Amino acid sequence: MHVNTIPGSEALARTLVASDVRVCFANPGTSEIHFVNALDRVEGIRCVLALFEGVATGAADGYYRLSGEPAATLLHLGPGLANGLANLHNARKARSGIINVVGEHATYHLALNAPLTSDIHGVARPFSDWIKVADRPERVAQDAAEAIAAARRPPGQIATLILPADAAWGPAGHPDAVVPPRAAPRRVDADAVEAAARALRAGKAALVLGGAALRGRALAAAGRIADKTGCKLLCENLNARVERGAGRVPVARIPYVVDQALRALAPFRQLVLAGAQAPVAFFAYPDKPSLLAAEGAVITPLAAAEDDLAAALEALADAVGAAATPPVTAALDLPALPSGRTTLDGVGAVIAALLPDNAVVIDEALTSGRSFGAQTIGARPHDWLNSMGGSIGFGLPLAVGAAVAAPDRKVIALEGDGSSMYTPQALWTMARENLDVTIVVFANRAYRILQGELAGVAAGPPGERARDMLSLDRPTLDFVGLARAQGVEAGRAEDLDGFARELARGIASSGPYLIELALPADAMA
Amino acid sequence: MHVNTIPGSEALARTLVASDVRVCFANPGTSEIHFVNALDRVEGIRCVLALFEGVATGAADGYYRLSGEPAATLLHLGPGLANGLANLHNARKARSGIINVVGEHATYHLALNAPLTSDIHGVARPFSDWIKVADRPERVAQDAAEAIAAARRPPGQIATLILPADAAWGPAGHPDAVVPPRAAPRRVDADAVEAAARALRAGKAALVLGGAALRGRALAAAGRIADKTGCKLLCENLNARVERGAGRVPVARIPYVVDQALRALAPFRQLVLAGAQAPVAFFAYPDKPSLLAAEGAVITPLAAAEDDLAAALEALADAVGAAATPPVTAALDLPALPSGRTTLDGVGAVIAALLPDNAVVIDEALTSGRSFGAQTIGARPHDWLNSMGGSIGFGLPLAVGAAVAAPDRKVIALEGDGSSMYTPQALWTMARENLDVTIVVFANRAYRILQGELAGVAAGPPGERARDMLSLDRPTLDFVGLARAQGVEAGRAEDLDGFARELARGIASSGPYLIELALPADAMA
Repeated sequence: MHVNTIPGSEALARTLVASDVRVCFANPGTSEIHFVNALDRVEGIRCVLALFEGVATGAADGYYRLSGEPAATLLHLGPGLANGLANLHNARKARSGIINVVGEHATYHLALNAPLTSDIHGVARPFSDWIKVADRPERVAQDAAEAIAAARRPPGQIATLILPADAAWGPAGHPDAVVPPRAAPRRVDADAVEAAARALRAGKAALVLGGAALRGRALAAAGRIADKTGCKLLCENLNARVERGAGRVPVARIPYVVDQALRALAPFRQLVLAGAQAPVAFFAYPDKPSLLAAEGAVITPLAAAEDDLAAALEALADAVGAAATPPVTAALDLPALPSGRTTLDGVGAVIAALLPDNAVVIDEALTSGRSFGAQTIGARPHDWLNSMGGSIGFGLPLAVGAAVAAPDRKVIALEGDGSSMYTPQALWTMARENLDVTIVVFANRAYRILQGELAGVAAGPPGERARDMLSLDRPTLDFVGLARAQGVEAGRAEDLDGFARELARGIASSGPYLIELALPADAMA
Repeated sequence: MHVNTIPGSEALARTLVASDVRVCFANPGTSEIHFVNALDRVEGIRCVLALFEGVATGAADGYYRLSGEPAATLLHLGPGLANGLANLHNARKARSGIINVVGEHATYHLALNAPLTSDIHGVARPFSDWIKVADRPERVAQDAAEAIAAARRPPGQIATLILPADAAWGPAGHPDAVVPPRAAPRRVDADAVEAAARALRAGKAALVLGGAALRGRALAAAGRIADKTGCKLLCENLNARVERGAGRVPVARIPYVVDQALRALAPFRQLVLAGAQAPVAFFAYPDKPSLLAAEGAVITPLAAAEDDLAAALEALADAVGAAATPPVTAALDLPALPSGRTTLDGVGAVIAALLPDNAVVIDEALTSGRSFGAQTIGARPHDWLNSMGGSIGFGLPLAVGAAVAAPDRKVIALEGDGSSMYTPQALWTMARENLDVTIVVFANRAYRILQGELAGVAAGPPGERARDMLSLDRPTLDFVGLARAQGVEAGRAEDLDGFARELARGIASSGPYLIELALPADAMA
């Protein structure tokens, strides 16, 4: 190291701090040890350890969804990044901003084909919007600033900065703190607003909201538009974050099941898109359409996720004469606590009744959770978060990041038993950071969604091999034990009374609490 | 479906069976449901469910290392493949053959950007040797046969077959079973043998063995060569499978720590490579060389991993006049069972004393396990398997596949506490399949290897953020609880007597058993 210089790793840490990047979700290795050392010496970044990289990337997604600010992740070479990819896929589809810092071998070591050598750039490419190898120590600060700017580019991007070890330990000089500029979202032009207004005036219209259109000023404007024009407010089946419950403008979610989605969209001759894409089926089926809009329906894009959706919807409200129209909002309507044998309707009622003010609900309950959205329209105001990318294993990591970003809010993660087992290590981080998360695991002992799909394909009842690939009942997973083994308090519920008691207990707690709810085979009824 | 035709998914299942692919490690989703249905109807493939895709790919690696035959994996689109990549990296570095079957959206659905849409080909590329999209149902059987042939190409390759849903459900006709030819390994030419013989005769020589040279006829030939010429037998630090213990030719492992490796290689002016690459450091360090051979040492390649290593080493034995020399082998030398406070030397002695005949040892103990290799040279004959790619989280999945491939052998997985938490879901598959695996978790409550690396970099003792990223003691992980929650019996040991009792119990069991061994801070002494 030259006299009077800092190493590249410290230039990176200083740039993150100067740019207001406040959290790093980390699973480091030897090639990142100089950056670990820099994070230790430079004040201003909270380091949250994950035992598995998919927890780190999913947490960064949750952090962005709640704070609107990118977190950093710290990942160990190509395989460490690979372990984080599935949740980067989800984050990218949710348009979350993340700065991945991925360690790499020293540049001169790469050609030797040491065991951990891989094509990190190639690993990053499918799930990154921006990638750069910061291979010159004196350029690391500038490269980091570019990564931060890319992650913040509206509505948010996945930026992957690959840091070779010799750039981390090499002399960076004394670079000035580089604070990247923040880009503003695009403004929608008047023609798009006028076209959308014409479409709404044509009648039989739905306004399909996505991204930031499901929150705040944008959502209120959409509510005024709906009240004035009579258009229906819809959203895609999966959304990054929806503000809903009492006092919020209710938006109907397009169903997951294709036939139901087709029925929901059949009435509409006009679909105006604000931050959403044209509705498509989650999967293709041999005898069903992939496009869900009614045949002949006209699709009019008002604004894309990159655009200033609040400004676009307010302009549209003006254009349809709804500037002063009060939006229709949901009234507080809490169900009585149900009792007795567990049914999914009863579970939804318990959740609706007990959801605390300003809760953050993360929904990875799949088949178990399909009715919960409709049941919580009149619950206390809350946010609802889905996996936008459809890759399961996002819920528990997302809860980590959401709880770090919003420590004053209760996070409630609704999990399938299958889905919770992709990233169960998130529980340990919740315990370590004493995060205010209540987890409900709906234990139906099966990949129930796939049993349904197989029934639609197979000629008869499944044989032994298909049962083996779709059932989780041999052995039974003990989620209470899994939680306690990682330091998370937990309880079990066998009926609705027990579930209400356990959920109240979790909500009353200030740290993580897991509830295993046994779902009998007939609970769907 | 046309009359008189089978779907592409069934053509794939039939081709796998006809080609003697016997096992599928699966984590399926909706886009794979037609293949699940086909596997259910076509007899001949054992389907083993994994709760996480990294378990499936790691199991396929273990299966290949023990059987020499590729297994199939079944993975759900790009994110499912992504979750399996880290262990595909390890498998690829170990030169294991695997056939990944990755479901994909129907071809016509791809352009719609449904949530799970990703560039699967791009995801597969960094860790696959062969990739094909089987997008025509009538070609699926042929494509599958090519994938199987690619996976079997010596010494083994990662073949990834991407199966769009409409190729899975579309009409394949009635293709004849396609059985791919098996390629033989390359023969080494006489010049290479003569060059290697000259190098050994020059003196101060080491023969560096890798891949299949560490087993069977090849290893025996190496032992004769060493006895005749006086050359040293070495192997890389990480190896796919080494046959060792009593009655086997002992081979010295090049140490992981750079300074120790330099000392180990310093005496040798000649390095002859048989299935190994020239020794390189695992990581680069600012003030240490990356190439480990002594300066000026001559490196002579005899044969690469792709070659017929047994034939090459037997030819070399002939060339040096060692055809009839008896190889030096290790004598059975079992230590007495130690007692009292836990030390790593004591732990190694317990393992050496109790290791059963023909055991398969999977070594992911990292810092805890560094002395075990030397201590088990005189143990009962066994195989020793490392991660070749250095990506942690391979051990438990590898144990699943090894136990499926070799049900008559005891599999013993040595795990760090940190490393076991990357893929803990493997325990559930062990319970489900009642696999004969004993797991030892060395609980030092830290990423000890990284604490050592940080100490080498930092000016003083670590601060709070560095400690937070490298320690696992807040909260303490309860591995006994984690195992029992997934249906695996488990016990805890606090000293060497307890460890010996627990290890004997695991070895006596016919199913999975996990031992959590608490390592006191001074156990390295």
